[in-house]
Amino acid sequence: MRTALVIDIGGTKIYNTIINENGEIIADIEKHHTPKTFAEIKSTLEEIVKKHEENVDIIGISTCGSVNNENTGIIGSTGNIAAGYPDMDFQSLSKKRVFVENDANAAAWAEHEIGASKGCAYSVMVTLGTGVGGGIIINNKLYKGKSGAAGEMHFKMRTDKHRQCTCGSWDCFEIYASGTGLKLTAEEMSGNPDITTYDVVGGAQKGDIAMKNILNRWQEDILAGLIGLANLFDPDVIVISGSMAEFVDYDYLEREVNREIVTQPLKIRKATAGNYSGMIGAGLLALEKLLANQ
Amino acid sequence: MRTALVIDIGGTKIYNTIINENGEIIADIEKHHTPKTFAEIKSTLEEIVKKHEENVDIIGISTCGSVNNENTGIIGSTGNIAAGYPDMDFQSLSKKRVFVENDANAAAWAEHEIGASKGCAYSVMVTLGTGVGGGIIINNKLYKGKSGAAGEMHFKMRTDKHRQCTCGSWDCFEIYASGTGLKLTAEEMSGNPDITTYDVVGGAQKGDIAMKNILNRWQEDILAGLIGLANLFDPDVIVISGSMAEFVDYDYLEREVNREIVTQPLKIRKATAGNYSGMIGAGLLALEKLLANQ
Repeated sequence: MRTALVIDIGGTKIYNTIINENGEIIADIEKHHTPKTFAEIKSTLEEIVKKHEENVDIIGISTCGSVNNENTGIIGSTGNIAAGYPDMDFQSLSKKRVFVENDANAAAWAEHEIGASKGCAYSVMVTLGTGVGGGIIINNKLYKGKSGAAGEMHFKMRTDKHRQCTCGSWDCFEIYASGTGLKLTAEEMSGNPDITTYDVVGGAQKGDIAMKNILNRWQEDILAGLIGLANLFDPDVIVISGSMAEFVDYDYLEREVNREIVTQPLKIRKATAGNYSGMIGAGLLALEKLLANQ
Repeated sequence: MRTALVIDIGGTKIYNTIINENGEIIADIEKHHTPKTFAEIKSTLEEIVKKHEENVDIIGISTCGSVNNENTGIIGSTGNIAAGYPDMDFQSLSKKRVFVENDANAAAWAEHEIGASKGCAYSVMVTLGTGVGGGIIINNKLYKGKSGAAGEMHFKMRTDKHRQCTCGSWDCFEIYASGTGLKLTAEEMSGNPDITTYDVVGGAQKGDIAMKNILNRWQEDILAGLIGLANLFDPDVIVISGSMAEFVDYDYLEREVNREIVTQPLKIRKATAGNYSGMIGAGLLALEKLLANQ
């Protein structure tokens, strides 16, 4: 069975391991802090590749940033990582083929292949973390759009310039539905600028009504976004992943989305492919590419 | 060259004509008022089919309502037309094959084949009329989703239940960006419940500042929606059609959308396939189906 060296490159951590064609992790997970300069990031990646490339058939990289339709490099700019990184020539890292995909897209593919949207031809994945990532599967294929950048969860939740988003624009779904969004909602509702998402989640779990109300307000914003996605894409399922996916009520969201949409009923499910779904998805996509090119 | 009898069935009017494989209208355009009962609608359609079916290769129908992925019938319910209509057995109308598509989808296909999105693999069409219709083209194919209902322009513009949409839900793009939305914005901004969209458009054209401000507010809501669509779909172009498409500033919208999105630059264009684009698109889709099945 063929295998892929897989590397997940994020703003704070770089992970790597090896996966097989079944999406199984078959080596140790190695972890590095993401260095601050482009040269150091490149040299970290070179070390990882040098150590493992002889033992695998292809390299699959899951990265922050939008990735082009050729799966060779990043398009546009990428926050929270060293300047120069988006211009990385990933293929130069190895003599083996290097396949690159956006981390949220790769994770969505892992869910489609071995996770919560397995067997579904049409799905949308929403990753709720510090920000919000998106991955869209259409007719059993990753949807990338004209340039590769599709599936960005930057659609507006209001039009009165209430919260500026990390993207520079205003009131995107990301700045309401993310962990950052929950903190901002908590600040607004409590009047306490030092309140944390832990205060909200922990308080709500202990039955604190004010914290429950904050969590509910955050969940209503997520619900509003899911209704729009369901009406636009008419998917079989919307999968929610990421660190904040623990804190939403799936039965409630599924019932309310289906009550409001004008399209046909869908499922709302929690992701099941695990914390390393970006690496698994990038590896599976890379191995499928290898197979298709034979 | 093969030809299709094409029929456009809307809540107020039924049109029919004949088109050829080039999307050219090659017969008179006939017009009927949409009858109030299902039985009368059916008998109107039967008359149209009886009159023309011997002269064509296939029947293409553009209808209000979401159409299934088999292009045989309507799914879900449909406002503004006789009860029972959504259960119509369209194939029973003719011995020739009957191909059915949603009117906004059909119009989007006409733009893709002979209009403003010709040559673009990825496009979104937004039809601004009494309501808002949507049609999405992905990789040169009409995107229908799991059930056929995709492309519904019901995503939320705010989350405080300000305006109820015709769909029953609250604050959808449709209830801000449509002609109905412009009237509601005008009522809110002027305090005059009798103000019409004609007052706004006519006043703005004559230089009335208050009317210009209303029109601009309406256009800002359209802009907000287009930004979300561009970030989700990363299309080559967003095409705007419908009776209200006359009143938006395409240069402004294109510049502002491209300034705000995190995906790659796109065009915003006015539709060019004309008033009968629904019939043209339904006919072209029907004729392509005929070709594919040979």
